[in-house]
Amino acid sequence: MKTTLKVIKIGGNIIENEVLLQQFIDDILTINHPFIIVHGGGKTATRISKQLGNTPQMIEGRRITSSQDLEVVTMVYAGLINKKLVALLQSKNINAIGLSGVDANVILSNQRSSSPIDYGLVGDVKKVNSDFIYSLTQQKICPVFCAITHNGKGQLLNTNADTVASEIAIGMSSYYYTELIYCFEKKGVLTNVEDENSVITLINPTKYESLKANKTIHEGMLPKMENCFNALQKNVSKVIIGNTQVFKENQELFTTLTL
Amino acid sequence: MKTTLKVIKIGGNIIENEVLLQQFIDDILTINHPFIIVHGGGKTATRISKQLGNTPQMIEGRRITSSQDLEVVTMVYAGLINKKLVALLQSKNINAIGLSGVDANVILSNQRSSSPIDYGLVGDVKKVNSDFIYSLTQQKICPVFCAITHNGKGQLLNTNADTVASEIAIGMSSYYYTELIYCFEKKGVLTNVEDENSVITLINPTKYESLKANKTIHEGMLPKMENCFNALQKNVSKVIIGNTQVFKENQELFTTLTL
Repeated sequence: MKTTLKVIKIGGNIIENEVLLQQFIDDILTINHPFIIVHGGGKTATRISKQLGNTPQMIEGRRITSSQDLEVVTMVYAGLINKKLVALLQSKNINAIGLSGVDANVILSNQRSSSPIDYGLVGDVKKVNSDFIYSLTQQKICPVFCAITHNGKGQLLNTNADTVASEIAIGMSSYYYTELIYCFEKKGVLTNVEDENSVITLINPTKYESLKANKTIHEGMLPKMENCFNALQKNVSKVIIGNTQVFKENQELFTTLTL
Repeated sequence: MKTTLKVIKIGGNIIENEVLLQQFIDDILTINHPFIIVHGGGKTATRISKQLGNTPQMIEGRRITSSQDLEVVTMVYAGLINKKLVALLQSKNINAIGLSGVDANVILSNQRSSSPIDYGLVGDVKKVNSDFIYSLTQQKICPVFCAITHNGKGQLLNTNADTVASEIAIGMSSYYYTELIYCFEKKGVLTNVEDENSVITLINPTKYESLKANKTIHEGMLPKMENCFNALQKNVSKVIIGNTQVFKENQELFTTLTL
């Protein structure tokens, strides 16, 4: 029987908030399975980019990535945020290793077509080298990924962290019963964004269509949901959206996605 | 019989110069042994630090590292320079992995005492986890290290890249016949800094004392030489100082250090 692996995506609102980050670390310490972390960090990238005199541009919440912007996100995601997080995990005796997709050729991407929108140096995941990731989890090493990938021809590419998480979860499903967890500051997908307890506990494709139709699910959540269903269709065993409390045994309020 | 491993430190003047970097990459492609790269990047760190509005401070060529400076060097060394170099190596079919000392707990350091000079968040290497590095070279993966380490308590530390290289070489000597190569823009240690061909081909401790006494060896070179002799005393098989040409079979002009 396959053992369980958790692939945990943590959003920028957790990683960039010391209280929530500490809460996250405390909560993941209770997990007694191997796990992999994938992190974002867009707000820090935007702050440092502005401090360097650049003018970051976003379309529908996604960063238009010039070569200057790529330098900033590579510094911030692969350097600053990744290594700080790994140091914090190491201090809690979790043997973490910080990686980007270029390291050991773990995530190959294709640069996204410039039509209909030219996002610049942005990658869409083509292949995950899950054998290498498995060799790490087998050694009880916890991989911590930032969402920088490469095209194999020397070009780094800025990649969506939600997609990186779902593609890693898909790749690792050959070895493990894989759970994909999108961990952010809210308890789950909410019917009313003002009401923290209005969590939709179960979303299947039919429910998803009705939530889209009545605009309960907002634009930013749509690509995340697509990643969730894509993962479920490709052998990921379980997909959950919730806050850091989802790791606790007795936690009941979060969103589970099913097919 | 042990096989050969080369531990190659490349200086900032190579990594920050596109022509020299390309030359370096072309030259290391001719190596038919496993190798490990350790890189610096101080000039880029200083440039980005100033661009962010900081005022970098150096004493005897060493960076006083405040928490702000640490953020910059972590971004520049572990992010920007490390991932660019790894992407370049991957494009040449070298399966490189970029690491800092915090990753997989590979290099533990102690924060340097604040007396006689308070260098701030600077580390002195305490322990290299050579087992993990060996597991990578055994998988034909080429580790590429930046000189950021950690104290195991959540604190990243800025560390001298020459020392990181010599400590890794010492650690790897349990597994390999290890060669430590300091690769920079000159052909070796020169008697006359203006004359590129005035290379001192062999330096032993007696010669070193006389070169120090007559001031042929300048201040910046002294700690590098100390690292070299320390490595030789701790089972590193060979120590060389030269330019990127030292990897070529027929190259004869470089400095070899012996005991």
